[in-house]
Amino acid sequence: MPTEGLLIVISAPSGAGKTTLCNGLVRRFPALKESISYTTRAPRPGEQDGVDYHFVSVEQFQQMIDREEFVEWAQVHGNYYGTAIATLDQARTAGIDILLDIDCQGARILKERGIKARFVFVVPPSMAELRRRLEARSTDEPEVIEQRIARATEEIREARWYDYILVNDRLEDAHEALAAIVTSARHTTARLWGQVSKMFDI
Amino acid sequence: MPTEGLLIVISAPSGAGKTTLCNGLVRRFPALKESISYTTRAPRPGEQDGVDYHFVSVEQFQQMIDREEFVEWAQVHGNYYGTAIATLDQARTAGIDILLDIDCQGARILKERGIKARFVFVVPPSMAELRRRLEARSTDEPEVIEQRIARATEEIREARWYDYILVNDRLEDAHEALAAIVTSARHTTARLWGQVSKMFDI
Repeated sequence: MPTEGLLIVISAPSGAGKTTLCNGLVRRFPALKESISYTTRAPRPGEQDGVDYHFVSVEQFQQMIDREEFVEWAQVHGNYYGTAIATLDQARTAGIDILLDIDCQGARILKERGIKARFVFVVPPSMAELRRRLEARSTDEPEVIEQRIARATEEIREARWYDYILVNDRLEDAHEALAAIVTSARHTTARLWGQVSKMFDI
Repeated sequence: MPTEGLLIVISAPSGAGKTTLCNGLVRRFPALKESISYTTRAPRPGEQDGVDYHFVSVEQFQQMIDREEFVEWAQVHGNYYGTAIATLDQARTAGIDILLDIDCQGARILKERGIKARFVFVVPPSMAELRRRLEARSTDEPEVIEQRIARATEEIREARWYDYILVNDRLEDAHEALAAIVTSARHTTARLWGQVSKMFDI
């Protein structure tokens, strides 16, 4: 039996820097994968079922929604996309480390279902700095920015039940801390005891 | 109230490389301190009570032994030295991060008393490598080396209840993993929530 895979769950309000941090983490730990999503769209040339996506019919997808099998799902340009709880469980059993970038509602589903994961919440150093970052991106209308800021406070309340909080002030520090969460999680006794007891025949 | 201090407890069989790892960790995290020991020896010029040591009489030390106030104590060249549980508690409350290099018996006392700590156990990559390292040090008689090796297996059994295990194969990797344990421990929600809730007024 291989060592169990890790599940790193990361959430943040929009503008906190989560995407940059996730990209940096995957560069640093190439063994860390995204989970394979379910989708109702047709495979593109070269895409393999179970590798790129789990390709399913709209009926199958709808059944999975009804059976509450998704951590999150969304409809984009007429196609459905979703992350199944079973996929995360299978990755763990197969020894695959997964990074899951997901909002608080999705993370809470995992927590409530007792899925083993490290829950990481990224916060900006202040609301003023969050506003500055959202304005600097200049992709959002002022109204949208106000909505994001109002929502951010609500989201940050959710950080309370996460395992770790990263205050993304200096990006290098936040990168370092996120990498440390992964590295330390790889050295827990729960994860290594089987291997160590074999090494020393105890 | 300051953020609580961390307590990092590290144990290992002789020859696993614990001392080298601890020295590296303290260089990397200068805020990580050794706990202040109690001793019955007289202060040397310049040594301050409560800074270098807690200087006590033999009677006081004996009372502390009787009241089971020590995690560990030893008699060296006629003087007593000991680490008090209360000292570790005080450091935590004062926000001081402590690195405690201690054997399994001492660590177990902390665990049983419910002292909040990260327990880290360092193991060699194999018994053959442990033997090679002990022989390479050439400070021990062959008989002593055999005793250390016999004891190592017993000690490694104790690793089971520690939080983390470091297999010290490549020293740089072990340094990195130990640093990651400290860094991740500094980012737990338990530790940061007070500060974050103030930052965002939630």
